[in-house]
Amino acid sequence: MTEGHGLDASVLVGLALILAVAKLGGELFERWGQPAVLGELAGGILVGNLALAGFTGAEFLRESGVVAALAELGVIILLFGVGLETSLGEMLEVGWSSLLVALLGVATPFLLGWGVARLFLPDASPLAHLFVGATLCATSVGITARVLKDMGALRTREARIIMGAAVVDDVLGLMILAVVVGAVEASAAGGTLSFAGVSLIAGKAVAFLVVALVAGHFLVPRLFRPVGRLKTRGALLAFSLAFCFLLSWLAARAGLAPLVGAFAAGLLLDEVEFADFDLRGTGDLEELLWPLGALLVPVFFVMMGLRVDLRELARPELLGFAAVLTAAAIIGKQVCSLGVLERGVNRFAVGLGMIPRGEVGLIFAGVGAALVLPAAGGATEPVISRAAFGAIVIMVIATTLVTPPALKRAFARAGAGREGATDEATAASSAASSGRGAGGGGEV
Amino acid sequence: MTEGHGLDASVLVGLALILAVAKLGGELFERWGQPAVLGELAGGILVGNLALAGFTGAEFLRESGVVAALAELGVIILLFGVGLETSLGEMLEVGWSSLLVALLGVATPFLLGWGVARLFLPDASPLAHLFVGATLCATSVGITARVLKDMGALRTREARIIMGAAVVDDVLGLMILAVVVGAVEASAAGGTLSFAGVSLIAGKAVAFLVVALVAGHFLVPRLFRPVGRLKTRGALLAFSLAFCFLLSWLAARAGLAPLVGAFAAGLLLDEVEFADFDLRGTGDLEELLWPLGALLVPVFFVMMGLRVDLRELARPELLGFAAVLTAAAIIGKQVCSLGVLERGVNRFAVGLGMIPRGEVGLIFAGVGAALVLPAAGGATEPVISRAAFGAIVIMVIATTLVTPPALKRAFARAGAGREGATDEATAASSAASSGRGAGGGGEV
Repeated sequence: MTEGHGLDASVLVGLALILAVAKLGGELFERWGQPAVLGELAGGILVGNLALAGFTGAEFLRESGVVAALAELGVIILLFGVGLETSLGEMLEVGWSSLLVALLGVATPFLLGWGVARLFLPDASPLAHLFVGATLCATSVGITARVLKDMGALRTREARIIMGAAVVDDVLGLMILAVVVGAVEASAAGGTLSFAGVSLIAGKAVAFLVVALVAGHFLVPRLFRPVGRLKTRGALLAFSLAFCFLLSWLAARAGLAPLVGAFAAGLLLDEVEFADFDLRGTGDLEELLWPLGALLVPVFFVMMGLRVDLRELARPELLGFAAVLTAAAIIGKQVCSLGVLERGVNRFAVGLGMIPRGEVGLIFAGVGAALVLPAAGGATEPVISRAAFGAIVIMVIATTLVTPPALKRAFARAGAGREGATDEATAASSAASSGRGAGGGGEV
Repeated sequence: MTEGHGLDASVLVGLALILAVAKLGGELFERWGQPAVLGELAGGILVGNLALAGFTGAEFLRESGVVAALAELGVIILLFGVGLETSLGEMLEVGWSSLLVALLGVATPFLLGWGVARLFLPDASPLAHLFVGATLCATSVGITARVLKDMGALRTREARIIMGAAVVDDVLGLMILAVVVGAVEASAAGGTLSFAGVSLIAGKAVAFLVVALVAGHFLVPRLFRPVGRLKTRGALLAFSLAFCFLLSWLAARAGLAPLVGAFAAGLLLDEVEFADFDLRGTGDLEELLWPLGALLVPVFFVMMGLRVDLRELARPELLGFAAVLTAAAIIGKQVCSLGVLERGVNRFAVGLGMIPRGEVGLIFAGVGAALVLPAAGGATEPVISRAAFGAIVIMVIATTLVTPPALKRAFARAGAGREGATDEATAASSAASSGRGAGGGGEV
C-alpha cells in the first residue's frame, strides 16, 4: 500500500523472520553453553542457505536497502554501547603491559593474516590481503569477560591486563580499518595510496579521536547538564542518540567508519554524571539503550550469516584457508603474551583471553564486503569476496568457540590467577566486563 | 564510506537533527502546558520551512527512503503500543452509549469533511474529498485522557464513555481508511470502486480483524508460553516485535494499512499473562517498547512537520479551508454527544472530549500523501496535495490545542462530572488512559 514511501511490507515480514531466527539460534547456543551471538550468526547462515537451495524469501532481505540500513544502525548502537561501558580514565591508566600486549596483539595477527591471504587468495587484489589482515586485529573481549566472571577471576591481574589491552585493540583496529578503507577508496578512484596518504588517513583518525575526546571531555558535561533539566520524557535517550549519530557522521566525514564516532560518543557520555536525570527507575542509559540494541543488533548478525554461502565453503581449498586463518588468529594473539612485563602473571592465560574475535571481526568483514574495487571489464567486485567472507566467519566462530574451555583450563592448571589477585582494579574492570559480556552476547 | 550499502552517513546527521528538534520542540510545548507531540510537529515545520527558505539540509531528509522507512516503523511501534494499552475485554464491554457515540462521531465528521473538501478543493479528485473526510474520523483520546487525569476525573461516567468510544473510533477509522485507500488504488489502476468493491474491502478489513482477534485469542497465549521459558535476554521483546511485524505484513497483504495489524497485535499481546517472563525489573512490555518509540516515533512527527509548506498556507483560500475544516472537525464530534443514553451525564463534556485528532489524523494524512493518482499528461499526483496536507495539519493542531481548556471549563461549570462518578470502571480505564496519555505525547 505504501510502496515508494520507503517501507515495503516485505521488510516487515523480513524483520519478523530475522528476530525469530536470531532469538531461537541464540537460545540454542546459550543452552549449549556458547555465546548467543554465535546462534544469531548460525541462524542467519541456515536461513541464507535454505534460500540458496531454492527457498527464495531470504534473497529479498539480502537486497533490501532498508534492512541493510537497520543492520548498520545496529552496529552503531552496538559500538555506542561498548563505548559507554569503557571508561576513558581506565583507558589512560592501563599501564605499559596492556599497551605492549595490545600492540603485539594487533601487529602480529595483522601480518599473519595478510600472509595467509596472499597464500590462499593469490588472484585477489593486494588490498583484499590487507583487509583480511585487518579482520584479525581487534579483540572481542566480551566472551573472555564473561568466562572470567563465571570463574570469579575478574579481579586478577591477568583480567585487568586483558581488559585494558582489549580497549587499546579496539582503537588500533579501527585505525587500521580506516587506513585499509582509505587505500581501497584511493584504488577505486584509480590511484594508489602513498606512504603520505597512509599517514594522512592515520593522522586524520588520530586527530578525530583526540579532538573528539579532548573537546568532548570539556564540552559534553556542559552540553548535557541542561539536558538533565528537561522535563520531557526520554530527553536523555534522545539527546544521547543524537550525539552518537552526530559523531558517527563526523567520523564518516573524517574518512573513518561511522562506528568509530559511535564508540567515541559512548566513551564521552560514560563520563557524564547522569545523577540528575529522570531515568524512570530503569537503571541507566545502557538500560534505556538495550531495547534498541535488542531490535537492531540481531539484524546485523543475521544479515552477516545470510551472506555466508556454504557451497563456497564446501571447496577444500577454502576450508583450508579458513583453517589456516583460524590458526593465524590464535597464534598471532599468543605472541602478545610477550608484552606482559610483570612477574607472576599467567602469560598463557593472557594470550588465550585475547583470542576471540566475535562481533568486531564480523563488523570489519562486513565493511569489506560492502566496498567495491574496479574489476576486469569495467565491472566492480567487493574487496572481501563471498569466499573470503565465509572463511572469516568460520575464523570468528572458531576463535569464539575455542576460548572459554581453553581459558578455564589455563586458569585451573596454573592456579596462579587467584594468588596474583589485586583488589584495587576491581570496580572499574568488573563494571566494564559485565557490560562487555552483554555486548559479546549480541546485545547492547 | 558505506554508500550503496543502505545507510548514507547523511541519514545519521538527519536523525541527530530530528531527535534534537523533536525533544526541544516537545519541551517548549510541555512548558506551555501543551502536548509534546505538537512541539515535535512544530519543530518539523520550522526545520522544513527553513529548508524551503534556502537552508538545504532538510531537503535530503524529505527524499530519504531510509528516513521514511524509519518513520513508518515509528507509526507501527506507536499503534502497537496503543493496542497494548487497549483491553480487548474493555472493548467488548463498552456498552451501547460508547458504540453510539463512536458511530455518530465517525459518520458526522466524515460527511462534513467530505463536504468541506468538495467546497474548497473543487479541482481535486473526488477521492481526495473522501480522504479528507477520513482524516476527520478518528479520535486521539490521549490528550483528553491526560486532561481528565489532571482533573482527577478519570473515574467519571463521562470518561468511561469517551475511552470506550475512542477505541471503537480507532477501529472504524482504520476501516474507513482501508476503504478509501482501496478506492484510490482501484482508480490508479484505471477503474472505479463499485459498491461490491467497497463491500469487499470493508469485508476484508472486518475479516482480518475478526480472524486475527479470534484466532489470536486462542493461539497467542499458547505461542507465547514457550517464549516465557526462553533464557536468552530479550526473548520476549524480540518475539513480541516479530509478532507485531508479522501481523502488520498480513494486514498489508489483506489490503489494509500495516498499522491495523500492529494495533491488532498489541490488542492480542495485551491479553497474554507475562508473569512468567524475566522482564529485568523494568515493569512490562510497554516499558521495553518505550525506548524504541522514543527513537522512531519522533521521526514520524518531525517528518510530518517537514512536509508542511508555510508558503502554501499563506494563501487566504487555504487558510479559509483550514479554518472551516477545523470547525467541521469540532462540530462533527459534538453531534456524537447525542449518542449518550444515560441520564445525568455531561453530554457537552463527552462531545468536547472526542475533539482532538492528534497523531491519528496525521497518520491518515501521511498515508494519503504517499498514495498517487494518475494526473493529466501521464504524470501522477499525491491524493493529499501539499496544500491539503497543510490544512489537515492545522486542523490537527487546532483541535488538539482547543480541547484541554474547553474540557476543563465544561467540567468545572457543570460540576456534574464528579457526582456521576462510578467506581467500577476505574482500574481498566485509568490504566488505558495513562498509557494513551503517553501515546498522545508522541511516545509509546
